[in-house]
Amino acid sequence: MKIELTPIGVAHTPAADIPRHWSVSDVEGELEVFEPYRQGLKDIRRGQKIVVLFHFDRSPSFNPRLLTQTPPNRRTPKGVFSICSPRRPNPIGLSVLEVLGVSGGRIRVKGMDMFDGTPILDIKPHIEDVSDCPSGPQEP
Amino acid sequence: MKIELTPIGVAHTPAADIPRHWSVSDVEGELEVFEPYRQGLKDIRRGQKIVVLFHFDRSPSFNPRLLTQTPPNRRTPKGVFSICSPRRPNPIGLSVLEVLGVSGGRIRVKGMDMFDGTPILDIKPHIEDVSDCPSGPQEP
Repeated sequence: MKIELTPIGVAHTPAADIPRHWSVSDVEGELEVFEPYRQGLKDIRRGQKIVVLFHFDRSPSFNPRLLTQTPPNRRTPKGVFSICSPRRPNPIGLSVLEVLGVSGGRIRVKGMDMFDGTPILDIKPHIEDVSDCPSGPQEP
Repeated sequence: MKIELTPIGVAHTPAADIPRHWSVSDVEGELEVFEPYRQGLKDIRRGQKIVVLFHFDRSPSFNPRLLTQTPPNRRTPKGVFSICSPRRPNPIGLSVLEVLGVSGGRIRVKGMDMFDGTPILDIKPHIEDVSDCPSGPQEP
């Protein structure tokens, strides 16, 4: 079974040096959401965190030798499902980014760990527990 | 541009009633990881939280009317990128689940909000800040 996805947008950043993970990144940039999907941005606000799923489009294809990998700053290999390596069975990345502003189909964000030109697949609310859940029991 | 993914596993749960979101779920179940990917599970431990990406394989295809949707328990429509609806441009779901145990390629989990038989696409560590990052500056 194959699952086919289509990018909803693309990442833009002028930064030449991209940190390896959003949790160690202060890099700013923009997520350009393509016109057919822009109405879906209407409730994204400055100051929020968002979860961004993106395509690791520059990763080599996966092979069984990549089931364990030694992360940067580590001495021992770890299972691929316990690390954030871009070389994984399905090349989907996940970043938690801070929204600096939204305008004309572009979300200005901070914390980028994706390269300029990276295809964006989805944007989701950042939920830590039920109090953040948009369909939770209470109107926020 | 199309991106093609292949499931790495499948979700199993005996529950007939599946909560709409992991943040309101106590449902237990198992993630069966297919044999070629099992070595990647070696560092997943009981008590951890994991992020699971899965395919909303029973969602209808997306159309522009779904760019805003009114979540359960709400009165006003919200942009699709601010809610967790399974009806989204790319039908990928994200759950944060608690690991109850790992054995024979199966992860026993709590907090399920996916149907029995749901294809699993990826498993990632649950990271809230740099102290959780597997490639952070300090050996954990």
